[in-house]
Amino acid sequence: MNAEIIAVGSEMLTGDRIDTNSLFITDQLNNLGVEVVAKHVIGDDRERLARTIRQAARSSDFVIVSGGLGPTEDDVTRDAVAAALGRAQVFNAGISEGIEERFRRMKRVMPEINKRQAMVIQGAEILANDCGTAPGQWIVTGKQVVMILPGPPHELKSMFTRECMSRLAHIVPPLVIRTRIFRVSGMSESDLDQTISPIYKKYENPATTILAHNGDLQVHLRARCATKAEAESLLDEVCGPIETALGSLIYSRCGHPLEIVIGRKLTERNATLVVAESATGGGLSERITSVPGSSKYFLGGFVTYTAAMKTEVLGVPEDLLELHGAVSPAIAEAMARGARNRTGATWAISITGNAGPGTDGPEGAAQAPVGVVYIGIAGPDESVETFHRIWPSSDRARVRAFAAQMALDMLNRKLQ
Amino acid sequence: MNAEIIAVGSEMLTGDRIDTNSLFITDQLNNLGVEVVAKHVIGDDRERLARTIRQAARSSDFVIVSGGLGPTEDDVTRDAVAAALGRAQVFNAGISEGIEERFRRMKRVMPEINKRQAMVIQGAEILANDCGTAPGQWIVTGKQVVMILPGPPHELKSMFTRECMSRLAHIVPPLVIRTRIFRVSGMSESDLDQTISPIYKKYENPATTILAHNGDLQVHLRARCATKAEAESLLDEVCGPIETALGSLIYSRCGHPLEIVIGRKLTERNATLVVAESATGGGLSERITSVPGSSKYFLGGFVTYTAAMKTEVLGVPEDLLELHGAVSPAIAEAMARGARNRTGATWAISITGNAGPGTDGPEGAAQAPVGVVYIGIAGPDESVETFHRIWPSSDRARVRAFAAQMALDMLNRKLQ
Repeated sequence: MNAEIIAVGSEMLTGDRIDTNSLFITDQLNNLGVEVVAKHVIGDDRERLARTIRQAARSSDFVIVSGGLGPTEDDVTRDAVAAALGRAQVFNAGISEGIEERFRRMKRVMPEINKRQAMVIQGAEILANDCGTAPGQWIVTGKQVVMILPGPPHELKSMFTRECMSRLAHIVPPLVIRTRIFRVSGMSESDLDQTISPIYKKYENPATTILAHNGDLQVHLRARCATKAEAESLLDEVCGPIETALGSLIYSRCGHPLEIVIGRKLTERNATLVVAESATGGGLSERITSVPGSSKYFLGGFVTYTAAMKTEVLGVPEDLLELHGAVSPAIAEAMARGARNRTGATWAISITGNAGPGTDGPEGAAQAPVGVVYIGIAGPDESVETFHRIWPSSDRARVRAFAAQMALDMLNRKLQ
Repeated sequence: MNAEIIAVGSEMLTGDRIDTNSLFITDQLNNLGVEVVAKHVIGDDRERLARTIRQAARSSDFVIVSGGLGPTEDDVTRDAVAAALGRAQVFNAGISEGIEERFRRMKRVMPEINKRQAMVIQGAEILANDCGTAPGQWIVTGKQVVMILPGPPHELKSMFTRECMSRLAHIVPPLVIRTRIFRVSGMSESDLDQTISPIYKKYENPATTILAHNGDLQVHLRARCATKAEAESLLDEVCGPIETALGSLIYSRCGHPLEIVIGRKLTERNATLVVAESATGGGLSERITSVPGSSKYFLGGFVTYTAAMKTEVLGVPEDLLELHGAVSPAIAEAMARGARNRTGATWAISITGNAGPGTDGPEGAAQAPVGVVYIGIAGPDESVETFHRIWPSSDRARVRAFAAQMALDMLNRKLQ
């Protein structure tokens, strides 16, 4: 079976915005064995949108329309779907009350225009929105289904997962899909591909994809078969040689990112962690605390952006800063040691570097070339190991993200 | 004038690939004053593609089709355009010789199938490809133009810049584009729209768009006129009443985010800033230091995730923590005061809250409901003001992003 995805909104037709919802929906549909054969982004134009929906509903089994469900005049999706399918819209008092209630909880009064969000296409099933005001709609038209979903990605994801997937599973002939994910750190994307492509290129099923994001690599293998046993055996056949080829470069076999892998290891050992950051400015702490439950092992962090903060808060000796400069192995070591001593944590990570783009890093960073980062790991045996890396990039955000990834990778290796 | 962009290729319909050519083309077209009203990604399906092209050529001035020009059977673009426009294709010996020559230079023999790339739609102008084998085509059909361009981004960019822009400049009436951006904080998207839509709805030109992201709102106005003076005066006409209606809710008139606006104000006053975070776990510091040059005013931050860290590092009294719990105005105040006293910064921001999803926040956070955040701002007059907010979300990342945005907004108001 096949599907078309239509994203609605003139704001997605500029040179700097992309529609990411369709990527999520595509993944979900592919997991059911449904192929996406076309996708569209249509501006806030009722007629053009209605034409696109009409055409899609003629040629594809599923049509998923996202966005354009807000309360304002330029939110045209409900009207366009109604026009394309030749159906009326009905005001639903229950939805309207739900939206009013949501506003009340935020101590606000629902603006009158939000009532537009309570209009429902005749014959549609309502899809509850647990993260926003606009409900979705599920409309069966003969053999086709048209789905209307909200545009904000977190609303759409929640609704599609909760409401659409189970309905789709009743319609789509069952296909067993089994996925394996390896997460890999410490090598480049092209080295990874060169290492494993001779293995996975021999197979069309499972399909293998490599994803790379700021130094974090993922290998996704997806087998689609009639039975679970068949899919698992296919995966075993391909994954065995991949695991052998990559060895300890694989840090996770279940898709977990490094911050979760580390969190589990620290929890198992009843160990705690503290962080001292300069170049990454809080980004490493932010990533560690993105994990619910991280308070079990994460004591906290120090963002020491000035020399004085490094000295006063972490106890980095002033003369060491003068001698080596803030971006140096000696300072990475002193920061990690200082953070650990200061807090009594089992482990401490430090990062100092120059993230660029110019001479505008933390105080003292300008003495080092752009892209240079030193990482220190202080552990329970009182030793501190330092690592360094130069990234050939003057993209501040990228250097910072790469540095945080590398720091987590280094700690993870220490915990092995 | 307006345009539709059609990217061809089933490989762009997976969950991990996006079509970036359309972003480049959109930028180029917008610079000429041509608006992109729809874009499509169509798999390698001749009929579906022909239908999409036919519809686009009926409703838009320019149709740009990219990709699907390779030599193989699944490269369907030439055939689909011919079918959509009802024109024949003609073999062009000159193109074929050019491709053969290209192969010869690479010491290879042209495979017979590459001759397909020398087929030209009747009446088309040929667009030279200086980076690859497949030439482009420029087809005038009555008032419309259909362009066929190669899919590889470097080939497309070069061809569009060299061959299409000058041709377009002859057709498109010269137009000046002027943009203004207001950034707004402290209100909801629907309140913003309700406040300003009575103003901007009266105008089709300038076009107004509202963008919302984690509590940060942007109003984009784009005027397209024959002269610069005309565009500026149109913008003045609409922006004046919008500025009056929003008043101090506007924090930037040039598109800068809050972290840059605050950075400028602190720099002007020779003031410094320190941050003490709990629920946001480093995210506020990370955002402040994302600005190159932030070391001029940002001393650093404390991520105090445990009660002990709050007490030992920031000097928050233990009995205060016991009495009020970690998520309370009293602790927000004590954290801000402690961070400021500890470092001598002019200003300090603190954040304490429960970002959810469950009871897994920083130590002590579980006593407060999910979504509750307290923010403290300590200033040079030694006073501390606290603010609080409840977000009706159990999405950890969103609550944390909203909290950081609100904290920056509160400091910015203090700096006004």
